[in-house]
Amino acid sequence: MQLMRLGEPGSERPAVRADDGTVHDLSGLTADVDGAFLASGGIARARAALDQGLLPRLAVQGVRVGPPVAGIGKIVCIGLNYRDHADETGQAPPAEPVVFLKAADTVVGPDDEVLLPRRSVKTDWEVELGVVIGRTARYLDSAEEALDHVAGYALSHDVSEREFQLERGGQWDKGKSCETFNPLGPFLVPADEVPDPQDLGMRLRVNGLLRQDSSTRRMIFPVAELVRYLSWFVVLRPGDLINTGTPAGVALGLPEPKPYLREGDVVELEIDGLGAQRQRVGQA
Amino acid sequence: MQLMRLGEPGSERPAVRADDGTVHDLSGLTADVDGAFLASGGIARARAALDQGLLPRLAVQGVRVGPPVAGIGKIVCIGLNYRDHADETGQAPPAEPVVFLKAADTVVGPDDEVLLPRRSVKTDWEVELGVVIGRTARYLDSAEEALDHVAGYALSHDVSEREFQLERGGQWDKGKSCETFNPLGPFLVPADEVPDPQDLGMRLRVNGLLRQDSSTRRMIFPVAELVRYLSWFVVLRPGDLINTGTPAGVALGLPEPKPYLREGDVVELEIDGLGAQRQRVGQA
Repeated sequence: MQLMRLGEPGSERPAVRADDGTVHDLSGLTADVDGAFLASGGIARARAALDQGLLPRLAVQGVRVGPPVAGIGKIVCIGLNYRDHADETGQAPPAEPVVFLKAADTVVGPDDEVLLPRRSVKTDWEVELGVVIGRTARYLDSAEEALDHVAGYALSHDVSEREFQLERGGQWDKGKSCETFNPLGPFLVPADEVPDPQDLGMRLRVNGLLRQDSSTRRMIFPVAELVRYLSWFVVLRPGDLINTGTPAGVALGLPEPKPYLREGDVVELEIDGLGAQRQRVGQA
Repeated sequence: MQLMRLGEPGSERPAVRADDGTVHDLSGLTADVDGAFLASGGIARARAALDQGLLPRLAVQGVRVGPPVAGIGKIVCIGLNYRDHADETGQAPPAEPVVFLKAADTVVGPDDEVLLPRRSVKTDWEVELGVVIGRTARYLDSAEEALDHVAGYALSHDVSEREFQLERGGQWDKGKSCETFNPLGPFLVPADEVPDPQDLGMRLRVNGLLRQDSSTRRMIFPVAELVRYLSWFVVLRPGDLINTGTPAGVALGLPEPKPYLREGDVVELEIDGLGAQRQRVGQA
């Protein structure tokens, strides 16, 4: 079972996708898939209702897929969490996680248009495993208990403008929070349906050309350690999203002339079990 | 007239403070002071209702003051925006604004306890002018039009953990988003009641000792330019907060042994016309 949100931006309706691929309306059970829903055992309630045949089928043909979580409070991102990506950007693998924030209002649906910011010349792609928090995490003692605070996983695209991020003074955040810069979904896959978050293949293509082809096996700091570590610096709350870093293959790491995104490009990405995204690149 | 929110955390009630110091219930007019209220002309409606005597008096003795804005979507912070502060931290004044984000769930009331994070040894103070957005700002052409997008101003305390920020690898964000790290208020002062946001005296004391004593006159990038500039990197939405940087006098800039905050310390800060805060420092 996967959780989804379907409909036009701002008026999505919650839904579940059963293992047979049918999609069912969840709006009789909850107004939305958000932190309160996740923290109150909503996933178990949705599963029980689906199993009991209580959720009406939805026709989904032609319906927009929204981000699978509403009301995301914050997005905490991890930098340089794959050794090959640290290498390609010319930076040493970090001794402890590199942390930055991304504005939550950058989140869009998995197939929505990604907008090049005005005056952007270096907009880049980053396929990432997204971790959605289900229970408040604060000063966790061990990585073992950390995974109990994860509601589920989602495919996340951490779009990044490299000139804004690296050449405009100061902190990376300037190139991470442009409008539409975080396509998310299509699914929130419950944590108990992902047997091993550290064994998920991930791929990203631009105009059909395979650019990133890796696995969450290659993370330097695994999900459990990230959740534990972050809980010492921020309070992780239900509905918060962690973008866990990207593997090698971004435009920044390629030889000159680097193939940064241009209007009309098509980006397709996927993570095993978490579904796929497809974005056309537009101009803000 | 100033806007306030009064009551226990999570159940504050909106209020206005009249120029005679009386406080009046606003909950008949709006459920809260948030982005939707600000974007829909709520301040003008509140003023009209107050002028017409339609708002019942509130007894405020002993009532907690909350942050004056609810549902803050994001906090965008400006680093090194006072020349003397850049000097004291050993950094060159920036050629363009230094931008970072702070998690919005760090916001607490102006007199709430500030918690030292566990294992913190370098928690520091920063008095700042907070700017609350009232109208969506996106790719603004000029600083002149930028101030039309400001709903009002609030006193903001950008509490910062310097070891987390500067010595733990990566980006500043790690030391900026700890629990309780953004006392805000007591007031949201409507923009049209602040004759010149670039002429406000600001002071901060720790245990009665004056540590910061400056004026928004000394900003490198003034508010109007910050709003214009930021609108090219993020969409500024109603209810978003900009922390515009701190002047000299933080612990980081003082001689060794630097007087970082300890449990039991009392921090008092104020900006002319925006009210005052007083926090006891506790331990997380």
